[in-house]
Amino acid sequence: MPIVEIHLIKGRTLEQKRLLVASVTKAITESLAAPPETVRIILSEMEKDDYAIAGTLMSDKGH
Amino acid sequence: MPIVEIHLIKGRTLEQKRLLVASVTKAITESLAAPPETVRIILSEMEKDDYAIAGTLMSDKGH
Amino acid sequence: MPIVEIHLIKGRTLEQKRLLVASVTKAITESLAAPPETVRIILSEMEKDDYAIAGTLMSDKGH
Amino acid sequence: MPIVEIHLIKGRTLEQKRLLVASVTKAITESLAAPPETVRIILSEMEKDDYAIAGTLMSDKGH
Amino acid sequence: MPIVEIHLIKGRTLEQKRLLVASVTKAITESLAAPPETVRIILSEMEKDDYAIAGTLMSDKGH
Amino acid sequence: MPIVEIHLIKGRTLEQKRLLVASVTKAITESLAAPPETVRIILSEMEKDDYAIAGTLMSDKGH
Repeated sequence: MPIVEIHLIKGRTLEQKRLLVASVTKAITESLAAPPETVRIILSEMEKDDYAIAGTLMSDKGH
Repeated sequence: MPIVEIHLIKGRTLEQKRLLVASVTKAITESLAAPPETVRIILSEMEKDDYAIAGTLMSDKGH
Repeated sequence: MPIVEIHLIKGRTLEQKRLLVASVTKAITESLAAPPETVRIILSEMEKDDYAIAGTLMSDKGH
Repeated sequence: MPIVEIHLIKGRTLEQKRLLVASVTKAITESLAAPPETVRIILSEMEKDDYAIAGTLMSDKGH
Repeated sequence: MPIVEIHLIKGRTLEQKRLLVASVTKAITESLAAPPETVRIILSEMEKDDYAIAGTLMSDKGH
Repeated sequence: MPIVEIHLIKGRTLEQKRLLVASVTKAITESLAAPPETVRIILSEMEKDDYAIAGTLMSDKGH
């Protein structure tokens, strides 16, 4: 029954998202011996001015 | 003091959202005997390529 | 596919939790015309010293 | 290692966001004696029809 | 910079958690070409009476 | 209306939590010109074997 939320910066391609959810699901089912159908993944995409490290927005860091 | 986050796929009408938050709030206040003013609901809407079940994006499922 | 997280203060009985998840699920399925099997609810229970309103912990408020 | 998610209504300026993440990070590092580099902040911006208090959407309240 | 929260039922061994975070991190870094140091994972463990599917608590299902 | 969730490692004193919620609330209200009563903070405390950086649990790092 794992429910997963992944916060990541916007800008991934559809192909990267496909690969991401497939491989994370596989990692979870193999580690926990859980059936794949029970794994739900939410991708929560952030703009660069909505994420900060050490008090500085990513849009101000040029990352 | 319940704080609720509901993740759902984009595409609901304003009327559906109105009904959703009114009825979920009612369900909570009746179950927990909590005053309505203490209930906060965040609707977090997802694109179909931001949600996966069993390792497959919803946009690839035609759901 | 709604996934719901409800943050609430610890101390509800099992019977209250049963009622809560049943009635919130009903409220969601009726509002959104979604099948009940797709609704997942996470109850996230907080101690009173892990929740604050207006900068004051609930454990300091006697709420 | 604090990871912070702040849900707020859309419409803040870039300058307000800059100030927000800088001052919240400072508040955390000073309160917990944690190094700034360990603080991550996610700003999760909501439309007014995605947030409800007491069962009423903010877009219906004129707030 | 992916930040991941995994909600799962309590009862995993330390060894399972070790394997889980290592393999999910690998899945993410390989899918997104992100450096491992940027991946943070929060495991959020739930009691069986804090998770419901289709309106029924897991503790009432015998799952 | 900011709702804040702070994930942090267990082990803070009550006094540290008091200081944390007071100073984070002040930082938010000053940055956003929001009334203090609208700020809600959830502290979500994690065990060291429930948090990982770069694929390694904190309990395995001696942090």
